[in-house]
Amino acid sequence: MLLCDIGNSNANFLDNNKYFTLNIQQFLEFKSEQKIFYINVNESLKDHLKSQKNFINLEPFFMFDTIYQGLGIDRIAACYTIEDGVIVDAGSAITVDIVSNSIHLGGFILPGIANFRKIYTHISPRLKHEFNTQISFDAFPQKTRDALSYGVFKSIYLLIKDATQNKKLYFTGGDGQFLANYFENAIYDKLLIFRGMKKIIQENPNLLL
Amino acid sequence: MLLCDIGNSNANFLDNNKYFTLNIQQFLEFKSEQKIFYINVNESLKDHLKSQKNFINLEPFFMFDTIYQGLGIDRIAACYTIEDGVIVDAGSAITVDIVSNSIHLGGFILPGIANFRKIYTHISPRLKHEFNTQISFDAFPQKTRDALSYGVFKSIYLLIKDATQNKKLYFTGGDGQFLANYFENAIYDKLLIFRGMKKIIQENPNLLL
Repeated sequence: MLLCDIGNSNANFLDNNKYFTLNIQQFLEFKSEQKIFYINVNESLKDHLKSQKNFINLEPFFMFDTIYQGLGIDRIAACYTIEDGVIVDAGSAITVDIVSNSIHLGGFILPGIANFRKIYTHISPRLKHEFNTQISFDAFPQKTRDALSYGVFKSIYLLIKDATQNKKLYFTGGDGQFLANYFENAIYDKLLIFRGMKKIIQENPNLLL
Repeated sequence: MLLCDIGNSNANFLDNNKYFTLNIQQFLEFKSEQKIFYINVNESLKDHLKSQKNFINLEPFFMFDTIYQGLGIDRIAACYTIEDGVIVDAGSAITVDIVSNSIHLGGFILPGIANFRKIYTHISPRLKHEFNTQISFDAFPQKTRDALSYGVFKSIYLLIKDATQNKKLYFTGGDGQFLANYFENAIYDKLLIFRGMKKIIQENPNLLL
């Protein structure tokens, strides 16, 4: 079974248990005879995907209890894997969704870590630094690089902690493993979105015919 | 007395008690016969300013107790006005500095509010929204615009609150008044940096000769 989760920067594939990533240009050149079950949040690819006969959009099959308007299908797929907890998907944006008794309570969005770096560089050349991923949260920073890193990492940490309280915390996405390290008992699951897609296929076995 | 505080996007002037702002292009065209006491963090203007005989750089006169490497002179000038407390300067970047017994304990930096908006727009056209400045922190957002606003405003709020504890809190800068509203007993002072500049001139009366 070939699964594909398409975002704004990349298309992530799961070919049985083999994971690989293509950038959008590579994705447009990608050819396959196989059935490909996909979800997509990239507006610019919607028409392209409709014209591909072997690409099957899983989005219409998700029945998910939320009043959130315009919740991205990648966030829905991730939330679909849990009954209770908080899901953080840390990619080009960081999305945080809160689920309780299989009901979506809402969510929020922060810029992704690499995009924080881009904004700083854009504000001033003096703020162009690689982040210090070892920055301590227990002392105030004493130089620019640490001041930027503390600002980004601690604000992300505090906002997720505030939303999580005592709930279970799940991370996915490119920076998910790094951010999970700030929390005790957080679970990092690179394949969380694919698990949601697999669950939908299991619930709709006709899709495989 | 004409005071000038030059940043990355704007030059702010205080002409006795009259405040005005020029963008950098306007600033380069600005002519005056008066003595202008200035501080400047804009690298690209350093040579230009040195060549202007009536522009007097106040930076060398600030003696400020800090181990922070490369602390911007605008942050020093603001900190110079208080003995104890936290100073937030919310402009194109948001700088936060902690002062105790006239000693700088450190500080950190976040992107400014307008730059958060720019970066969201850059991540995806779906994330292009005006922020909801009335967003509640007490319920999880239920649409994209609120999700972005909550991410930005609540993460800034939590990080400042965490640094402030029971200290006095001072805001300045273009978004200072808006952010000050999130805190009880916060002081908004548009002219904080100019107060630091005036204090230095008072301590060095020869500058006025």
